[in-house]
Amino acid sequence: MTELLMSAPLRLGIAGLGTVGTGVIRLIQTEAEMIAIRAGRAVQVVAVSARDRSKPRDVDLSGYAWEDDPVRLAQRADVDVFVELMGGDSGPAKAATEAAIAAGKDVVTANKALLAHHGQALAEAAEAAGRVIRFEAAVAGGIPVIKALTEGLAANRITRVMGVMNGTCNYILTRMESAGLPYETVFEEARALGYLEADPSLDVDGIDAGHKLSLLSAIAFGTRVFFDAVELEGIGRIDIADIRHAAELGYRIKLLGVAQMTGRGLEQRMSPCLVPVNSPLGQLQGGTNMVVIEGAAVGQIVLRGAGAGEGPTASAVMGDVIDLARGIRIPVFGQPAVSLADPVAAAVAAPAPFYLRMTLQDKPGALAKVATILGEAGVSIDRMRQRGHDEETAPVLIVTHRCTRDALDHALARLPATGVVVGEPVAMRIEAV
Amino acid sequence: MTELLMSAPLRLGIAGLGTVGTGVIRLIQTEAEMIAIRAGRAVQVVAVSARDRSKPRDVDLSGYAWEDDPVRLAQRADVDVFVELMGGDSGPAKAATEAAIAAGKDVVTANKALLAHHGQALAEAAEAAGRVIRFEAAVAGGIPVIKALTEGLAANRITRVMGVMNGTCNYILTRMESAGLPYETVFEEARALGYLEADPSLDVDGIDAGHKLSLLSAIAFGTRVFFDAVELEGIGRIDIADIRHAAELGYRIKLLGVAQMTGRGLEQRMSPCLVPVNSPLGQLQGGTNMVVIEGAAVGQIVLRGAGAGEGPTASAVMGDVIDLARGIRIPVFGQPAVSLADPVAAAVAAPAPFYLRMTLQDKPGALAKVATILGEAGVSIDRMRQRGHDEETAPVLIVTHRCTRDALDHALARLPATGVVVGEPVAMRIEAV
Repeated sequence: MTELLMSAPLRLGIAGLGTVGTGVIRLIQTEAEMIAIRAGRAVQVVAVSARDRSKPRDVDLSGYAWEDDPVRLAQRADVDVFVELMGGDSGPAKAATEAAIAAGKDVVTANKALLAHHGQALAEAAEAAGRVIRFEAAVAGGIPVIKALTEGLAANRITRVMGVMNGTCNYILTRMESAGLPYETVFEEARALGYLEADPSLDVDGIDAGHKLSLLSAIAFGTRVFFDAVELEGIGRIDIADIRHAAELGYRIKLLGVAQMTGRGLEQRMSPCLVPVNSPLGQLQGGTNMVVIEGAAVGQIVLRGAGAGEGPTASAVMGDVIDLARGIRIPVFGQPAVSLADPVAAAVAAPAPFYLRMTLQDKPGALAKVATILGEAGVSIDRMRQRGHDEETAPVLIVTHRCTRDALDHALARLPATGVVVGEPVAMRIEAV
Repeated sequence: MTELLMSAPLRLGIAGLGTVGTGVIRLIQTEAEMIAIRAGRAVQVVAVSARDRSKPRDVDLSGYAWEDDPVRLAQRADVDVFVELMGGDSGPAKAATEAAIAAGKDVVTANKALLAHHGQALAEAAEAAGRVIRFEAAVAGGIPVIKALTEGLAANRITRVMGVMNGTCNYILTRMESAGLPYETVFEEARALGYLEADPSLDVDGIDAGHKLSLLSAIAFGTRVFFDAVELEGIGRIDIADIRHAAELGYRIKLLGVAQMTGRGLEQRMSPCLVPVNSPLGQLQGGTNMVVIEGAAVGQIVLRGAGAGEGPTASAVMGDVIDLARGIRIPVFGQPAVSLADPVAAAVAAPAPFYLRMTLQDKPGALAKVATILGEAGVSIDRMRQRGHDEETAPVLIVTHRCTRDALDHALARLPATGVVVGEPVAMRIEAV
């Protein structure tokens, strides 16, 4: 093999030795020869850094230099690629990434939060220095979606990107449905199983998935990362009743990210949506991730795989590293960062059918009053179902024809005045997938 | 934009102006600016070639030089990349590809047959000349599967690759199921709709899909393309009864390609298999393609999309072209062609459960005789179902436990001697997906 490895080894400095960092090191140690023959050169770890040097880790670090400070690691003369696996949208991760770029290193990162908040500035700095930042592991774990979107589908005007990109949320929703348990119970189960981030809000409020969506958007539409414009709605208010009713109507509820460029601007949403139970997205159960990319030429491409975990994330990190070893160098977001457009966020999301659930007082004319108010707001009813009811109230399910969320909200705001609606109606978008 | 395009344009010579060739030209003409900004330089067509110059085509070719001979096109001094979209495993496609490499051109091709038969020699020639051959469009149409396998998942020891990669066969099987029509009828429908190759055997005998599988194998396992070792079995003998019975047992029948490296060597099969109806492969309906890649680190990755058609194939061709424009250059099969191993074909496929259907004479002891013979061959029965029967015979469905195909064939060969089996039993592998 030696004669094939004429290039010098690619030397990595790895900051962060949690699940992903140790997974990357294990992969390099166990598959060194395979990686070298594919990469065309050896890939070596030269130095590592983590918060706590004394923490027991089940990989052998004795061959690597240790740096307490990730910034110093990033600046080491013997490091070609700084691999940032610490996480966090500021602090050491940001400082070390900036230091790496300033020191002329390429960067491979799994840090979606950092790029969602500082991706544009980091990409501009890297490209000004002739360096690249790669982040396959930041989005949808082991699924090579950044590569598919940036390279494989580069000839496509992208019309829409969708994704279930938070495995924890999908696990919670799947478990609520299969076990018939309420959100709070399954949330506590997930916490006990260690599935939740230290700050669970990152998962269940859609923030983590929103970060990922904003990165896909930038590549898909050639716009600067614009995380602040992602409409976020979490899964905490989903009732087990809605999961059941959705199923009866032929749908499943998913925390679904949707990004599309419309005549009114860039639309980015991360919110619970109904999708047909027989669609690839509807079939997605448990912690698995899925990204759907729609291009003008290619039509619909669906990518599915593990969205987290040691192996899948290490696979993505090392895919990027092997790219760098092979000399694959393209702009961070697929075109020069300075050429990315300033997106205008769409003030109004594209129209869609909606699922509505509300409880009505069981008296004559109640339903007519609701239908009238919906109609006056321009919301027409496609299907309606009155469920078995108790003595005084009756739950009603409505599927609307396509309407804007604004029109719907306008109608919902007028419902209390009828005096026939009990409690708060629930409204969820039905996404055409 | 001009300041971003400092590199010289990438100049293409396109041979073959059928659906794919005109699709590529249309895409270049309509998306020139988007492609240039992503590729970092303009992509231009300089010359084209096809069998019949006078054939009406709905793209404007007036700006391009015409060559009657694709070999001359491939040798033109003003061509950087030879784009081969003629097809065929020999003749002009082979001659022109060889000429292009000899003349120092990179090659982008959609020609699976050519690479399945001559991929090793062409890759060695290209790499000796410092050139690359790219073939995303040759496998699974618009799905960027070559890129995913060669680049995105390069850090994975691949354990298995599976795929439904002939849309026509999947269309036929889907239509047989949904319309309850026999194979022959749907075959004629497909022919009338223009879905079949000029030589339909390429589709329905699994040859085309087998070509594709052999290319995926080479990348996945680092072995020379070995199409001759692909076990091929077509869909022509599938009975509508088997589709129905499979459905009752919770399966669908797919023309499924499976490649895996086993202790006994490389196993490559393209044959009708039963897959669980609720799996991604089982859910795949109509002309869509799906490739499943299993890697040691990443687990299972599923890719789904259109396997043919103007847009999807043009998307794949232009993905490769943009890669070349960006300077992405890796070995044809992911590692130097001279380093690819000579595969040993596994003499025996890995054990699996099998679906068996046979018709028995309706007399006492018939079933016991069959069960005994199966048992003596080491084939144990997982589930058995005797169907409603007419006067003299009774159809029997059997799902076996895992066994080798050899053991099963051994048992099947002994069945006629029992005198209780009517006609030929049907056996199909149940693939764990």
